Amino acid sequence: MKNFTVHNPVILHFGREIIKELGTAAKSLGNKALLITGKGSVKQNGIFDAVVKQLEEADVQWVEYSGIKPNPLIDDVRKAVTLGKSETVDMVIGVGGGSVVDSAKVIAAGILSECDAWALVKRETSIEAALPVLAVLTLAATGTELNQFAVVQNPESSEKIGIGHPSLFPRHSFLDPTYTFSVNREHTAYGIVDLMAHAMENYFGLGDAPLADRYVLSILQEAHEIALPLLNEPNNYDLRARKMWVAANALNGYPGYGRLSGDFAVHALGHPISMLFDTPHAATLSIVYPAWLTWLAPRVPEKISRMGREVFGVEGVMESISALKDFYRSLGVPISLAEAGIEGNQRKDLLALWKKLQAQGYAYPLAESDYEAILDLI
Amino acid sequence: MKNFTVHNPVILHFGREIIKELGTAAKSLGNKALLITGKGSVKQNGIFDAVVKQLEEADVQWVEYSGIKPNPLIDDVRKAVTLGKSETVDMVIGVGGGSVVDSAKVIAAGILSECDAWALVKRETSIEAALPVLAVLTLAATGTELNQFAVVQNPESSEKIGIGHPSLFPRHSFLDPTYTFSVNREHTAYGIVDLMAHAMENYFGLGDAPLADRYVLSILQEAHEIALPLLNEPNNYDLRARKMWVAANALNGYPGYGRLSGDFAVHALGHPISMLFDTPHAATLSIVYPAWLTWLAPRVPEKISRMGREVFGVEGVMESISALKDFYRSLGVPISLAEAGIEGNQRKDLLALWKKLQAQGYAYPLAESDYEAILDLI
Repeated sequence: MKNFTVHNPVILHFGREIIKELGTAAKSLGNKALLITGKGSVKQNGIFDAVVKQLEEADVQWVEYSGIKPNPLIDDVRKAVTLGKSETVDMVIGVGGGSVVDSAKVIAAGILSECDAWALVKRETSIEAALPVLAVLTLAATGTELNQFAVVQNPESSEKIGIGHPSLFPRHSFLDPTYTFSVNREHTAYGIVDLMAHAMENYFGLGDAPLADRYVLSILQEAHEIALPLLNEPNNYDLRARKMWVAANALNGYPGYGRLSGDFAVHALGHPISMLFDTPHAATLSIVYPAWLTWLAPRVPEKISRMGREVFGVEGVMESISALKDFYRSLGVPISLAEAGIEGNQRKDLLALWKKLQAQGYAYPLAESDYEAILDLI
Repeated sequence: MKNFTVHNPVILHFGREIIKELGTAAKSLGNKALLITGKGSVKQNGIFDAVVKQLEEADVQWVEYSGIKPNPLIDDVRKAVTLGKSETVDMVIGVGGGSVVDSAKVIAAGILSECDAWALVKRETSIEAALPVLAVLTLAATGTELNQFAVVQNPESSEKIGIGHPSLFPRHSFLDPTYTFSVNREHTAYGIVDLMAHAMENYFGLGDAPLADRYVLSILQEAHEIALPLLNEPNNYDLRARKMWVAANALNGYPGYGRLSGDFAVHALGHPISMLFDTPHAATLSIVYPAWLTWLAPRVPEKISRMGREVFGVEGVMESISALKDFYRSLGVPISLAEAGIEGNQRKDLLALWKKLQAQGYAYPLAESDYEAILDLI
C-alpha cells in the first residue's frame, strides 16, 4: 500500500424528509444563499419549494441561478459567479443532480476568486478558497455529494475537465431517496452505469490495495443487485435508498485509499463524446467501458476475472467483459456509438479529439494506435 | 435503510514516515501539547522521540503524562486533566494504542470541563467541547484513530464505559505501519480479534443495510486473510499496513450506516471480565463471541451462515461459529474463561456483575437466564 491521507469532512444527511435539517445547516453558514438549479424539474416536483421553505424559516435570504445543463457549461458557471458576487452571497446551494452540484462547487470557488472560473478549472490559477457549498441531491449517480471533485465543459475550447480541491467538499449534503422517485428509467439506468464506472476506475488503477478492492467489489455487487429490481419498481423506497447510498460511496475516497493510482481513461474517452454529440455522460461510459476492458484484458486478466466472478458470477476474462456488456444491455443503455446515433464522419471527429487528449489519469498509457483499436470496438 | 448522518472529519495520515506531517498539524492547533503515553514502550522504540522531534521543530512546547494502563483507568485521566489544566495546554496527543488514545480523548474533554471526568463518561454532565486530539498509533486494533468513541474504566464503581461525542474525533491521526512492527505475537492476534468484533457488532445489529453488510464482510475477509501470514511475518510492511488500515475501517462509521442499531452485547459482556480479572480486552471478545453467537443462532441463522460462507468458506450456522472458534484458536487467543485462568468462584463473581449490567446497546435483549446460558458456554 502506498501512503495516503484520509479526509472527507462532508456532513451527509441521508433519508426521508432529511431536508428538514437544511435550514439550521444553512443558517450556521451565513445569511444569504445562491441557489443553483437545472432546467426546471425541481420546480415541478416540489423540491425547490421545500428548500426555499427551509431557508425562509431559518431566515436565510436567497437568489437563484437556473438553467444548468446536464453536461454543465463554464458559461453558466461564469454567469452564476457574477450573480453571486453582485448579490454578496455567503453560500452556494446546488439543488439537482451531479451537473448542478458540480457547477455549484466551481461557482463557490469562482465567487471568491478574481480570476475567470475556467482558469480555475484549467489550474492556470490555483483555487485558494470557496464559499460553503450545500448539495440537495435529486439524482443518484456521480457521487459529487461526498467528494471534492467537479467536472465542467467549455465548448469553445472543446474541453471537459475535472477538478478537485479540499474547499470543494460540500459542507452539507442532503440525500432524500424520495427525491429520486421521479427520475425516469433511462436516467436511473445511467446512474447505475456512472457509479459502477467510478468504482471500476479505482479498481483498475495501479498498486495493491486489497481492502479498497473489496470495497469496489462490494459497490459493484450492490449496484448489480439493485439495478433491474429498481428499474421495475421505481417508487420502491428501499431500492432508491440503496442506489443513492451506493452511488455516494463509489467516489468517497475509500475505493482508492492505498492505491498508486486509479485509471480514468474511460471518463477521459467519454468526455469528448459528450462534448461533440451531447451524449449523456453515462452513455459514454457504457459505450467505452467494455471496449477499454477488452483492450486492457491482456494486462490485468486476473483482476477482470475476479470482477466477473464476484459481481456477475461468471468465470474467465472475456466472459467477465461480456457479462458487463450484457448487464448494460439489460439496463437499456447504449454499448456502441451506433446505438447512440454516432456514425460515419462523426467517428473520425471523435478519433481526432481523442488523439489530442492529454494523457492525464491513465494508469495504462494509450498510444494513437490504442485509440484506434478502442474506436474499432465501439 | 433508516435515516443516518455521515460525518467523520478525521484527517488520517497513513504510511511510512508519516510522522513527518505531525509538526505542521500540531502547530496549526496551538503552541503547547499534553502528550499521553502508556507504560514506556514508546520510549524504547524511538516513537516518542520522533514525536518530540516533530513538536520541537515546529516550536510546539509539550508536557507528558505517562503510565496509561492497557484497560485505561479514570484515575489516570483525572490526573492528566489536572496536569493539562495547570499547564494550559492547547491540544492532547495520544502516543500509543487504543487505551492511550481513548484516554487522550476523555482528557481533552475533561480539560475543557469544570466537572469530574467520570461524570462526563457517565453522561451525568454533557461534553460540550474538547481540546483538539491528535493520535499517533502504535497498535492496530480499536479503531479509535478514526472515530469519536472512547472507553475507560472505574475500578471503584466496577464499571467500564464507552462514550462518543463529535468533539472526540481526532483532528489528525498518524498511522505508520512500521510503528507496529514491535507489537508481539499475542497483541497482534488480539488486534485481529478486536477489529473483527467491531465489524461483527455492526453486522449483527438490527435493520437492513446491505452495503454496510458487504463492507463488514470485506473487513472480516481482509482480517482473516492477513492474520496468520502476519503472525508468521511480523515485520512484513504490507501485512502490517493492511492490518492497521482494516482496523481503522472496522469502526469508521461505514459498517453501520443505514442500520437501526448494532449489537454491542459482546463488548458489554467482555468489559466486566477485564474489570474483574484484568483480562486483555480482546481476550474477552474471543471468549464471549462464539458463545454469544451460539445463543444468537436461532434468531439470525442466515446472517451467521452468510458470514461463515463469505469469510471462512464453510456452510451452515453452527459450522460458521465453529470456524470462528477455530480461527481464534489458530491465533492462539483464549476461547474459554478457563484458558484465561478464570475458574470456580470467579465465574460466580462475573455472573453477578453481568446481571447488574444495564442492557445498553443490545439489539437482542439478554435476560438473566441468557447470561447463565452464555456463561455455561464459555
